Amino acid sequence: MKKGDVFEHTFGLTEQIYKGFIDLFNDKNPLHTSAEFAAAKGFESAVMHGNILNGFVSYFIGECLPLKNVIIQTQEIKYVKPVYLNDILNFRAEITDVFESVNMIELKFFFKKQNGIKVATGKINIGII
Amino acid sequence: MKKGDVFEHTFGLTEQIYKGFIDLFNDKNPLHTSAEFAAAKGFESAVMHGNILNGFVSYFIGECLPLKNVIIQTQEIKYVKPVYLNDILNFRAEITDVFESVNMIELKFFFKKQNGIKVATGKINIGII
Repeated sequence: MKKGDVFEHTFGLTEQIYKGFIDLFNDKNPLHTSAEFAAAKGFESAVMHGNILNGFVSYFIGECLPLKNVIIQTQEIKYVKPVYLNDILNFRAEITDVFESVNMIELKFFFKKQNGIKVATGKINIGII
Repeated sequence: MKKGDVFEHTFGLTEQIYKGFIDLFNDKNPLHTSAEFAAAKGFESAVMHGNILNGFVSYFIGECLPLKNVIIQTQEIKYVKPVYLNDILNFRAEITDVFESVNMIELKFFFKKQNGIKVATGKINIGII
């Protein structure tokens, strides 16, 4: 893996993922579970949990890179726009730095919706183990 | 909520959470699923997915704060030490800044294991909606 390498993957924010996340972590905040509450706060409908996107990041790092011997060291995400049920998210990550002396790789990523709008951006440092 | 407020919660990294996370996000990287692979890399046993901790952060923000009308804007986490199956994690968050002009609150947090060792630290900015 070298600086400039780009990886892409498409994730669907399906009902299975949404309900499974709630079952697993029990975050039933009304913003995520009540369309009425979300609408009263100016959103189209219930806003999906941002940390579902971090679950997608886990899959990407663990399963989509050409190396399996990796571990996430640090992770940042900024939620730019709300994500709703059934949104299709295009994930794109680029290697922005390789620190050979410490076996570390930095990636910057974003998620875009089907309409081309960027919904989240972030940075991940992984270690090669 | 004001600067200096502290919140604590205990999370168990149970088999249900571990298997549920794999079922949901399909990250079966050998570091997380093979005790032999993890041992060959110097770990005690299979290392739990760091993003399980981000799921716990979701629950904390959505369910444990005195306000429900909150949304995560940005989130950072540093994984300091590995977490293993059945670890009990004490989560502690402190409000480190309140930006009233933009209805934003900054929290810094850490997770400690049952043996007192800090396994992750991070920062969350939430908006009051």
